[in-house]
Amino acid sequence: MKQHRETLEIRTGGPGLLDITDKVADVVRAAAIRDGLLTLFIRHTSASLLIQENADPDVLHDLEQFMRRTVSRDTKLYRHTTEGPDDMPAHIRSALTQASLSIPVQGARMALGTWQAIYVWEHRDRGQTREVVAHVIGD
Amino acid sequence: MKQHRETLEIRTGGPGLLDITDKVADVVRAAAIRDGLLTLFIRHTSASLLIQENADPDVLHDLEQFMRRTVSRDTKLYRHTTEGPDDMPAHIRSALTQASLSIPVQGARMALGTWQAIYVWEHRDRGQTREVVAHVIGD
Amino acid sequence: MKQHRETLEIRTGGPGLLDITDKVADVVRAAAIRDGLLTLFIRHTSASLLIQENADPDVLHDLEQFMRRTVSRDTKLYRHTTEGPDDMPAHIRSALTQASLSIPVQGARMALGTWQAIYVWEHRDRGQTREVVAHVIGD
Repeated sequence: MKQHRETLEIRTGGPGLLDITDKVADVVRAAAIRDGLLTLFIRHTSASLLIQENADPDVLHDLEQFMRRTVSRDTKLYRHTTEGPDDMPAHIRSALTQASLSIPVQGARMALGTWQAIYVWEHRDRGQTREVVAHVIGD
Repeated sequence: MKQHRETLEIRTGGPGLLDITDKVADVVRAAAIRDGLLTLFIRHTSASLLIQENADPDVLHDLEQFMRRTVSRDTKLYRHTTEGPDDMPAHIRSALTQASLSIPVQGARMALGTWQAIYVWEHRDRGQTREVVAHVIGD
Repeated sequence: MKQHRETLEIRTGGPGLLDITDKVADVVRAAAIRDGLLTLFIRHTSASLLIQENADPDVLHDLEQFMRRTVSRDTKLYRHTTEGPDDMPAHIRSALTQASLSIPVQGARMALGTWQAIYVWEHRDRGQTREVVAHVIGD
């Protein structure tokens, strides 16, 4: 049994979903672990991780729009407003999605379904550098 | 330290929550791992995994109804409509729940609470065959 | 490769987020595992786990208020009402957040970001004793 850990630096470009599947697949390859478990962890509370459809970019657009409709930016609703009108909504959107994901590894590849990709979801208005820790354990 | 991986095929019957706890418990037993970690991963983006109450079926009904109220099926709200009025809502509902779950294993059993069960939540209108990968690592 | 498992008993004080980061850090230290993976699992369906901001308590207040606005307590909306008007909303709020979290361990510490803390989110009106299972695997 062995393990491998790497921290990816992801540069986001403002609100929306950024596909990091290829970068994560590179980590799994570098780990040289045939069978095991991959864990991803994002070190932030205003961006999150999500597994979603990889085929139609409209899905990503509609997900972002759903969050905008559902999580109000009206600062009158919030006490935490000093970091801007997008900050508290970003925390809520992160709470509704995931900080960590676990994906089995088989044959040195992630066991993703045909239509699945891994995304960093940026919830702030401005692009940021986001750190995602990837950990693989197995044989 | 050893590991075990198995893919469950779950036939759903349309929108709602399907209890897969017994099937997963069988995998944990087959793994013959006394202490460790179970990870479940669903290979789809329009169905998800959830840990929820196992006692009153009304809870499952109310969860489904909450999602119907909260995630609109009005196609005017979405760009991604070619796969039917239920598809984009299914992606959103999946994003709001989980693609992966991690449960410690103790004494060759999952460390579930008394009232917890594991569900596949089908978000599409039609039943589907859904693949759930179960991975166990431990001693 | 070794592993360690411990069950934390967390006494909550009614609705809201309770910081358990220090308690979890103690478990990681006790595990004496330098590099590996920590998994947290809550054995309940009306309380959940969340990684969120540790700096401004207003963020925690605003998260709780968001859930109160979003998940109605109107019992006319629910069938499952016998356990009180807060119970079905508590199940929904749990479904929208997490029952399990995975955090890589590096240098015998959790790989949390600077602004991240780990919370138990109590969704019932009355404080409860909540069990959180912590599992660490690694070297």
